[in-house]
Formats: sequence, structure tokens, C-alpha cells
Amino acid sequence: MADESLTAVQFGVGPIGARVARSARARGVSFVGAVDVDPGKVGRDLADVADLDGETGATVTDDPAAALAADPDVVFHATVSAAETARPQLETILEAGANVITTCEELVYPWRDHAETAGALDAVARENGVTCLGTGVNPGFVMDALPAVLSTPMERVERIGVERVQDAGSRREPLQRKVGAGTDPDRFDAEVAAGAGHVGSPESAAMLAAAVGWDLDGIAETVEPVIADERVETDHLVVEAGDVAGVHQRTRGTVDGDERVTLDLRMAVGLDSRDAVDFTGDPDVSVTVDGGYHGDVATAAVVANRAPAVAAADPGLATMLDLPLPSFVRSA
Amino acid sequence: MADESLTAVQFGVGPIGARVARSARARGVSFVGAVDVDPGKVGRDLADVADLDGETGATVTDDPAAALAADPDVVFHATVSAAETARPQLETILEAGANVITTCEELVYPWRDHAETAGALDAVARENGVTCLGTGVNPGFVMDALPAVLSTPMERVERIGVERVQDAGSRREPLQRKVGAGTDPDRFDAEVAAGAGHVGSPESAAMLAAAVGWDLDGIAETVEPVIADERVETDHLVVEAGDVAGVHQRTRGTVDGDERVTLDLRMAVGLDSRDAVDFTGDPDVSVTVDGGYHGDVATAAVVANRAPAVAAADPGLATMLDLPLPSFVRSA
Repeated sequence: MADESLTAVQFGVGPIGARVARSARARGVSFVGAVDVDPGKVGRDLADVADLDGETGATVTDDPAAALAADPDVVFHATVSAAETARPQLETILEAGANVITTCEELVYPWRDHAETAGALDAVARENGVTCLGTGVNPGFVMDALPAVLSTPMERVERIGVERVQDAGSRREPLQRKVGAGTDPDRFDAEVAAGAGHVGSPESAAMLAAAVGWDLDGIAETVEPVIADERVETDHLVVEAGDVAGVHQRTRGTVDGDERVTLDLRMAVGLDSRDAVDFTGDPDVSVTVDGGYHGDVATAAVVANRAPAVAAADPGLATMLDLPLPSFVRSA
Repeated sequence: MADESLTAVQFGVGPIGARVARSARARGVSFVGAVDVDPGKVGRDLADVADLDGETGATVTDDPAAALAADPDVVFHATVSAAETARPQLETILEAGANVITTCEELVYPWRDHAETAGALDAVARENGVTCLGTGVNPGFVMDALPAVLSTPMERVERIGVERVQDAGSRREPLQRKVGAGTDPDRFDAEVAAGAGHVGSPESAAMLAAAVGWDLDGIAETVEPVIADERVETDHLVVEAGDVAGVHQRTRGTVDGDERVTLDLRMAVGLDSRDAVDFTGDPDVSVTVDGGYHGDVATAAVVANRAPAVAAADPGLATMLDLPLPSFVRSA
């Protein structure tokens, strides 16, 4: 259950950070500070910037130390996707003695591909008696923690396939642009693929494998365009038939060359959203989430719903595998 | 990941206990003792009684103290459904300094309806520095822990409906008899309903409510017969059209008279098995497990898969809500 007395600093008040702040506020979290580098946000009340009801009394500053001086129970960190870029920001937070939940995709399970950063953050967290958790809906839940949980009643797991289809047309504009919606297919490889790929799939594969006891010796990713069959118009852009509607990203984790984990992610305008997990094993198990978990809503909810557990956890760098069973926590 | 060095005592070697032993052995657990009151089992190797390959060297005894003298890391307890009946057996185990996982349905979440027993077991576990967990597939997973996890990406949860349909024809004979399959409908109320009801649904409702922060003020159960439309023949019995095929049990948890949690369980021969979870909230979420988790297989797997976590947990009486994320753990 949410502890109504939790105090928080929102670190990064972009689209996701603002949603996290709204979600946490709905659970009774009190904001005592906010950090953002955008001069257009500095000096304004967090409520104004993040579209919260009323005022919080927390003024956005570009000086993390000033915000952290309020000694929050937890910091919600939503700035970047790369572990090494997030690291100095998180070290500042942990050294200030605050627990932190970050949406940094690579920190959802950094122990395989970002081990040095993971070890450093773990050490700083322990030294300061606080916890650092990376989470979100993807990575952090749908393609890693959830399939791990779904395997609990299985006698044997041989292969795990996770499919996530997100209608990008229902997502925020930056995501629609990022996945390349509306781009000419000829330009996809050169201009889109490099930057359009969802970050965090190798981390999901490694985390899921670790949960079921597999040591992956290889993780390979492919990114291809999804081509629109017909014209699609969203609130933000138009995709003509034959243009790129979004991305199709496949991540394959292997043990001794044998594909054990397959994460299949399509984010494109005009798709029917769904999440599905399929296990080969004893017994085979197939689970479907009708309509899928909506990315933007769900990331904020996962972060806010984990706040009480992170505030109560043993010190160190945690993953979703380490903490008690996640769930929705009641609003205040 | 399973710790291959875990040693165990199997306490209760009936149909479920035998399955738990097989499931644990497949994960590298070494059995150092076994307990059963059946004179037909006492004196035989656990492998013989539980249909394990080879020998374990663990001889079934009716003297718990003798088995526990082997100082196991964990005891798998599968004897009874009632918390108060299980209590003295579990106290003996905990006082011997062993962690224990029990399939006792009422101990999956005893804090609401068996609070005195829960408190006593928690105290004994703490005094002896060990952990006691009640779990299984139902209660313990499908209708409580799993829906809790599925709510993690939700912004608001208003109602939770869980439906579990199990084709009793694929289950063990005692369960087919217990649900009343083949009984005359006129005799159902008098002879079946009292004993046929699945034990543990109030515990599931209370656990799920606790996870999402609801304090249920009422939990009501109804048990009705499922009547066969047509003749059904299983490996163990025949149900004529018009006879009882099994039970339909509904459990309703309320807050201020408002039904928030509905657990709908049908166990009857001739049904198509499935599990489904439906949330009303922000957003609505519907999840389906095709074909459902098979009860007998799944209970043993859940117990065996939780053994490493229980062996590593903080002392006390734990529920599935308290321990780190569950998953399949790799076989040795």
C-alpha cells in the first residue's frame, strides 16, 4: 500500500517525467522538489509544468543539489536511456541519501551489458543506505518481469517468446516520430533505424533469462521498418500507404547458439495493440493481454506503484527480480 | 536460480506431496528425509513412494523429529488444508530450524481469517531464524499473486474479476470425486457442497485485496453444482447428462458493501480449462491464459520454484506478496 507520507523529487519533467509525477501524486506522494534543464520550466511550480491539480510548492530548478536538499524519500528519475549518461545524475541522487526509481532503459537490468556502471551504482547505493531501481513498462515489465512471473507454475521452460504490438498512433508525438512513422522507406535505414530502435530489449532478454536461470551467450537485435498498407492519420502526422508506419524490432537471446528468448516488438501507427507471452516447456503456456498495456500510461504507473517497495528495500542497485511482488498500490 | 545444494524433507507424500518431490528433484534438490503417516509408505525409500528415478536414500518415517534431524534447508509440507490442523506440524518443523513451504491452502494468506495462527507461526519462524511460506497454484498464484502482478502497470484499479475454469477430467481422481462429479443433483447440497468447495478462496481474495490496498469488510462464498449437459467419461468415472459434473464456486470480496474482488471458480468434468483476469480501472485490462494452468502440475511447480527464495528469505511467516519476484527456476 502506498505510504501517504512518501516525499519525492521529480528529476526530469519531460513527457514521461510529467506522467510519473501525476501518477505518484494520485497515490498521495508529496513533491518537495523538481529538476529539469529546460529554461522554460525552471522557476515554475511542478504542478504547472507537469499538469498536476493545484500547486505542489515544489519549484523546478536546474540545480539537482538544491532540489535534493529537501531530503526526499524517493526520487523519480526520467531523463535519458543510456546507463552511462544517467550514471552521474544517479550518483548525485544516491550520494544525497535518496532512494531512486529511474526510467533509464539500460538500467532495468544493467548487470550484463553495463556491468561496470551497475557495480558502481550498487556500491554508491549501499554506501548511502539507499536503493536504486530501473523500471518501466518496457523494459521493466511486459517483456521481462511479467513473463518471468508467468513461468512460475511451469515444470520446465525451454523457450520463451514475447510479442508486443503497440499502436504508435495512440502514443505521444515524439514516439511516433522516433519510430519513423511517415518516413520514406528508402530513408529508413539511413535516418531512422539507427535512432528508432527501442532501447532496453537486450536488458529485457538478459533479465528474463537470469530469472529462469539461463546464461545467454548471445543477444542479437534486428530493426526493420513496418510498411503501411493503407493511409493512416494520427493526431500528429499522416502516413501514406507504402511509407514507413513504424519499427519492427526482434531481439534473440541464445544459449549455445540455441534461441531461447525471442522478444518481438512492433511499434507502428495503425496496428492493433496486444501483448502475448508463449512458453515452450512442460506445459506449454500462452498468455494474452487484450489490447496490450499502453506504454506511456503504464510506465508512469509501474514507477509510481513501485515507490513504496523501493523506499522499504534493502540498499543497493535492485532490479524488478529482487523486490517483493509488484502490484498496483491504492491511491490515497 | 535453483541452488543445487538445497537439501529437503518431504512432509506428506500423498498425490500432491509426491508431485512436489518430483518437481524439486528435477531442480537438483537432494532429499534427506520424508514423513508420512501411511503405514504402507513408512520404511520405503521416498523415490519408491513418490515415483522418483533411482533412490534418494531418504526413508519415509512417521516420526517427524527423526526426519528433521537431518537438518534440511527446506521442508515441503503437503498434508492438510486447514491452518489450525497444519499449525502443530509446522511448529515442529520451524522449531527444528528448517524453512518450510506448505501447500496448506489457508496458510497462503492467513492474516485475515486465521490471524492467531498466523501470528504464532510468524513468531516461531522468527525465533528460529527461518521462513514459512504457504503457496500453490490456487490459492497462491492464479487467483491472487498473478492478478496482483498484472495490476502493476495500471493507473487505477476499481474492480478485479478472476475466472478459473478447470476441466476436472484431467485432474487426479480424488479431486474428481471431491468436486462431486457423477453425483445426483438432489444429493449435491447435502453430501457434496459442504466438502466439495475449494479451500482457500477467501485467502486469495484477502491477499489480492491486500496487494492493491483494499481492506475487505466482507468475503462471501457460494457453492453450486455444475450440471452435465451430456455424458462425460473420464479415466476414473462416468457422469451422465443431468448429473453433477462438478462445482461452481464464487467468492465475493466487498468494501463498504461494494463488490471489488470476484473469484469465479468452476472445477468440473467436461469443461474447457482457462484462466482469465479482468480489471475495471484506468485502463481496463483483460488477460487470458489459454487452457489455464493445470492444477496438479502447477502446484508442485510453484512450490519447487519458490524453494531458493524461501531458503534465502528473511525469517518469519511470508506470503507470495513478500518474497522477490517468482519465476520458474532452472533444473540442475
